[in-house]
Amino acid sequence: MTQARLKLGMVGGGNGAFIGAVHRMAARLDDCYTLVAGALSSDPDRATQSATSLGLDPARSYTDFQHMATAEAAREDGIDVVAIVTPNHLHAPVATAFLNAGIHVICDKPLSVSLDEALALQTLSRQQNRLFALTHTYSGYPMVRHARQLVASGALGDIRVVQVEYAQDWLSEPLELTDNKQALWRADPSRAGPAGCLGDIGTHAYHLAAYVSGMTPASLSAEAHTFVAGRKLDDHVQAMLRYANGARGMLWASQVAAGEENALRLRIYGTRAGIAFDQQNPNFLEYTPLGGATQQLTRGRVESEEARHATRVPPGHPEGYLEAFAQLYLDAALQINAMNNSQPVPKVSQLLTTVDDGVAGMRFIAAVLASSQANGQWTEI
Amino acid sequence: MTQARLKLGMVGGGNGAFIGAVHRMAARLDDCYTLVAGALSSDPDRATQSATSLGLDPARSYTDFQHMATAEAAREDGIDVVAIVTPNHLHAPVATAFLNAGIHVICDKPLSVSLDEALALQTLSRQQNRLFALTHTYSGYPMVRHARQLVASGALGDIRVVQVEYAQDWLSEPLELTDNKQALWRADPSRAGPAGCLGDIGTHAYHLAAYVSGMTPASLSAEAHTFVAGRKLDDHVQAMLRYANGARGMLWASQVAAGEENALRLRIYGTRAGIAFDQQNPNFLEYTPLGGATQQLTRGRVESEEARHATRVPPGHPEGYLEAFAQLYLDAALQINAMNNSQPVPKVSQLLTTVDDGVAGMRFIAAVLASSQANGQWTEI
Amino acid sequence: MTQARLKLGMVGGGNGAFIGAVHRMAARLDDCYTLVAGALSSDPDRATQSATSLGLDPARSYTDFQHMATAEAAREDGIDVVAIVTPNHLHAPVATAFLNAGIHVICDKPLSVSLDEALALQTLSRQQNRLFALTHTYSGYPMVRHARQLVASGALGDIRVVQVEYAQDWLSEPLELTDNKQALWRADPSRAGPAGCLGDIGTHAYHLAAYVSGMTPASLSAEAHTFVAGRKLDDHVQAMLRYANGARGMLWASQVAAGEENALRLRIYGTRAGIAFDQQNPNFLEYTPLGGATQQLTRGRVESEEARHATRVPPGHPEGYLEAFAQLYLDAALQINAMNNSQPVPKVSQLLTTVDDGVAGMRFIAAVLASSQANGQWTEI
Amino acid sequence: MTQARLKLGMVGGGNGAFIGAVHRMAARLDDCYTLVAGALSSDPDRATQSATSLGLDPARSYTDFQHMATAEAAREDGIDVVAIVTPNHLHAPVATAFLNAGIHVICDKPLSVSLDEALALQTLSRQQNRLFALTHTYSGYPMVRHARQLVASGALGDIRVVQVEYAQDWLSEPLELTDNKQALWRADPSRAGPAGCLGDIGTHAYHLAAYVSGMTPASLSAEAHTFVAGRKLDDHVQAMLRYANGARGMLWASQVAAGEENALRLRIYGTRAGIAFDQQNPNFLEYTPLGGATQQLTRGRVESEEARHATRVPPGHPEGYLEAFAQLYLDAALQINAMNNSQPVPKVSQLLTTVDDGVAGMRFIAAVLASSQANGQWTEI
Repeated sequence: MTQARLKLGMVGGGNGAFIGAVHRMAARLDDCYTLVAGALSSDPDRATQSATSLGLDPARSYTDFQHMATAEAAREDGIDVVAIVTPNHLHAPVATAFLNAGIHVICDKPLSVSLDEALALQTLSRQQNRLFALTHTYSGYPMVRHARQLVASGALGDIRVVQVEYAQDWLSEPLELTDNKQALWRADPSRAGPAGCLGDIGTHAYHLAAYVSGMTPASLSAEAHTFVAGRKLDDHVQAMLRYANGARGMLWASQVAAGEENALRLRIYGTRAGIAFDQQNPNFLEYTPLGGATQQLTRGRVESEEARHATRVPPGHPEGYLEAFAQLYLDAALQINAMNNSQPVPKVSQLLTTVDDGVAGMRFIAAVLASSQANGQWTEI
Repeated sequence: MTQARLKLGMVGGGNGAFIGAVHRMAARLDDCYTLVAGALSSDPDRATQSATSLGLDPARSYTDFQHMATAEAAREDGIDVVAIVTPNHLHAPVATAFLNAGIHVICDKPLSVSLDEALALQTLSRQQNRLFALTHTYSGYPMVRHARQLVASGALGDIRVVQVEYAQDWLSEPLELTDNKQALWRADPSRAGPAGCLGDIGTHAYHLAAYVSGMTPASLSAEAHTFVAGRKLDDHVQAMLRYANGARGMLWASQVAAGEENALRLRIYGTRAGIAFDQQNPNFLEYTPLGGATQQLTRGRVESEEARHATRVPPGHPEGYLEAFAQLYLDAALQINAMNNSQPVPKVSQLLTTVDDGVAGMRFIAAVLASSQANGQWTEI
Repeated sequence: MTQARLKLGMVGGGNGAFIGAVHRMAARLDDCYTLVAGALSSDPDRATQSATSLGLDPARSYTDFQHMATAEAAREDGIDVVAIVTPNHLHAPVATAFLNAGIHVICDKPLSVSLDEALALQTLSRQQNRLFALTHTYSGYPMVRHARQLVASGALGDIRVVQVEYAQDWLSEPLELTDNKQALWRADPSRAGPAGCLGDIGTHAYHLAAYVSGMTPASLSAEAHTFVAGRKLDDHVQAMLRYANGARGMLWASQVAAGEENALRLRIYGTRAGIAFDQQNPNFLEYTPLGGATQQLTRGRVESEEARHATRVPPGHPEGYLEAFAQLYLDAALQINAMNNSQPVPKVSQLLTTVDDGVAGMRFIAAVLASSQANGQWTEI
Repeated sequence: MTQARLKLGMVGGGNGAFIGAVHRMAARLDDCYTLVAGALSSDPDRATQSATSLGLDPARSYTDFQHMATAEAAREDGIDVVAIVTPNHLHAPVATAFLNAGIHVICDKPLSVSLDEALALQTLSRQQNRLFALTHTYSGYPMVRHARQLVASGALGDIRVVQVEYAQDWLSEPLELTDNKQALWRADPSRAGPAGCLGDIGTHAYHLAAYVSGMTPASLSAEAHTFVAGRKLDDHVQAMLRYANGARGMLWASQVAAGEENALRLRIYGTRAGIAFDQQNPNFLEYTPLGGATQQLTRGRVESEEARHATRVPPGHPEGYLEAFAQLYLDAALQINAMNNSQPVPKVSQLLTTVDDGVAGMRFIAAVLASSQANGQWTEI
């Protein structure tokens, strides 16, 4: 920590929530933030309880995010940035409130529940000149960033094929009929929006492919499907992709793939080489030049400023999901500090995912839903 | 070898050919066959030379397959069965000649260059009551047969998702412009038929998925694509699949996937478990019951009559492609011997792939080409 | 953080040090500590600079650890616990000073530079009734703790064979002749003590085997060897082990194993099952019951209070080295808080490694050096 | 098969035997041999039955190997070469009989039950100028031969460390008390000789390390141990190795390592690179240059005459144990044909393992037993 710690607020993430705790660990790891305020729950008791257990000043524990935005903006020592870790339907209203209050935003994905909301947030964050970071966690892995750099450097030649998938099995059964909080809101259109598996993990797959390949598809043919009887949103998505440069691709996301924990896998094939990444073994990146042997790249075996910037421990000491998440918080801190000091944003921090990635994700969701409703018709993104 | 060795003839497979030598090794491994006749090449010099190097009686080295069929059928010691290892366009004419001569057939895949040819062969083999084995090699692996048995036993529950792919990179560049014999005929529609990568390896992927899952898709949406400029046939295929039971699937085959050697991979997910098989590590089958740990099944760790029947060496001693190929020859020998002796075909040999699998493959090719020409329209198979 | 944050001091770990930063990240991750004081370097300028960049109160930045111990003990708001992250030769003097001041200790390994020092620290920490945690990081991995529990539960039956190794390649060349700080002190007997590779990573291998198996060997036959010309300490150790229950084992540690990054691997075989762990893929534990298939255990696929206690994110989201390190800090906090409140130490926290593990490690070092000097004679540990 | 098929006899390998059938498949695969005679069992009924099922001329089915040697040598069409697949104690007497009859020998390992026998066979085969091939199967893998060539080429620099192990679990329980034929003779000193696990698989590990590294150790410190109560021979061996060039190594072989099928693994580390090979995945060889990424070498990704000569199918089509075994038969045929025609032995065939490797193996056995009896004293080999 060579810069001032940023004052962080949080909306959502009260006791019992999953992703809120992850954001807090990520924010702590590199010592760039101090959590000082929160609207941790809309339930007043739970908000208070959560704030207490986190050691917050009771005066800065809010139950209303709008109130929090106004109050914090008015304080001399008000928060620099808010982390939004609510269910999807609240992302846009909360972000809007804080952007309007001149406060930087770090928001979980998907960005919103509609493309219109997403576009409005994009516009607003630019008008307000505030950072809008979106936590596409997997983009924080050193080997993902190195993969992106490999593609950008031309090491793969012209990209021909993109294969991406994200398979889980935790919704193989109707878990939303139990009291599983994570399943409950994700299967509820009023909180998750119109996309189930598609929004929850399909967007991650889509983003990872775009982030590394440097390309988004021009059009797709897709089917969103629901396997579990009575489920209100999709739990399985498959799509074929066409890119402007002639490349082809496939995307698959499923939450009913029995035996898979969190299998986000990306393969990209070019005219000169292919690469493969598996989120469950994130310390490795396979790289195979055409005609050559497959190389198992690690942080320790590549010269890569991008990977080094995203690295905390020496090669052979594995890093994981929390470190990737922390990387987004670190990059956000670097950018916010620069913006707060009217300095140019450091180049290494610019791999941070933002509202722009969120808009792209919402375009993807819209296109999949449209194509699926038209029985797989090729649809522009 | 506890039964009489069968007398084997071969059409195609002269010096320099690849798959002919593979068939001969496969035929030899379990000592069920003696190669005694051949029309190894349409070029007389090459035919003679090849026959000599294989130690054939010169009187039984032919240059014309029709003549060979007639002559061998007329001999007291004529061949029991012919192996057809020519380019695709000759499969049907050669098989027709030998079936008409009352001789059993073992034929390389794909079965033919059109569905009509395929259906005619199916009819003819039944009329003649001759075995028509089709060498879908990968079905000979012990762990593939065990996988099929696992699915059939209900261990996976109801099948929901089928993901199959076959990726190679050997046609990443226009190899057919060189003197590479394998590339030359495969890229030539007059010899390969209307399907390139689709016929060469797409059919293998399609077959493996069907063989293990016990289901063929009801319809598909597909795109056959050509990446290499000037190539006359497809070198990349992608498809989405729908099954009658509601299952969904994806199939991908490519010969321009830089870095992939021969990556035939199958994953099947059901309501109760998932399995994964990779042809490049064929001694293992991954099996994961829902909620349980992934198990790495091997021949030595499963109780499976199907796997045992397809096994030659103890667990931990790896088996490979030639053993899988030999298994088809062994099963064919078991069936032919039974048919020749008017006995029931042994149950363990009935996992052999036949003309019926070939017809299914030609239906798949036809559907992919039709869907692709209709911009991915869902097409019945 | 449901308890008061502990006030943490640090000795060593100034700017440019490696392990100090790791300790600080580990201490932050679970929000149980606030760093408030330090003797970060014996060089006053560097100490001040480091303290500033960490945001310490200048009044609590010390250059003398003895002074720091006295001063902090005298403050009302003095530190609860000190983290010792110096080169090996200072571990004992620093720990002694803080224990004498009544302050809990978290110390890096190896515990000391001699067995005598180690025994004195063990005695002193008991006399003072202070926690003496020793950071054998790898014991913090959830799957290591699950492995230990598996063995303890009898799932492996009687242990027969222990195979452990720790291979690196970073000292393949005489790096200590450059200005590499990490290599410099590790290759210098006056700071590292009499053991090079043996103390640096051999002790980790030895500890991991003991931690999981629940047994330490009764005797060993060993050779400590130096490959790199001019190096003053060993860079390669191999040993054969005999256990009191009749089990046999082998231990190998090397810093000249070209191609290895940080390959700490443990395999234990019993009468009923075997297990295998690889630190470079720490989210998995292989478990094979005799006659059964190998199971790939993950946090998500096992019922294990021990693993759950050491887990921060859901299955499929990989955890790494920092999380394992943080686990030691978390367990230390649980114990210190209990001790400070005169409560019994929580059971789940008792897997924390302590001065007792450090004494065992020093006994191991002494036995290896003795056996090696006696040309591999079997030596009691 | 571009040369005359050799006439092969076999001693041992009657119905029910394991390794005899493997030898026959290996001999058939490349069509260099015709099995024409055998003393398949010392039991006359079983010998006859076995000969019949293999289609041998009854006149050439013998019950006495000495008689067979004499009779075959006297025939115009007598065998060129005999395959010896008996229990260990008969290797030397049978080989002696056939060498004295001027017949080439292919013998299973270990070569004999004593070093004296081994040395006598070495001398006799030279006097008689006959080939004496010893089937160290694993030396027939293409990637093993490539590994050997890599080391010989200097790609690894100076060898520093050799780590080799062969772990199985099939003798974890006293299987020799059942009617398991394989266990019965292997656990019986009168047939297996003085070495159990040591002779059965320890010699394979020792040989593989020597074959690839090009070095045999100068001395060793070892322990041969028996875990299963009542077992008459060792079932577990561990050794430390010293090489003349200063390299160090470890060897471990066990037949009670619960969960291991046939885990023969070799790692060699030099000053410039390291390699790793696992017999259970024999189509791959890991190669890591110091400071570089690990490369997964395959037959298709290396330029290697040695690997190509040992290859039957294209890259990506896995080869296995039988192909490796067949390679030894192919190389033997190349050598015998050359010797029979008084031509120089082809260079590519000279990687064949012979009586010299067998003598080295017996020296290893003798040294391990001597060291073990002397409580691990370092013993010259």
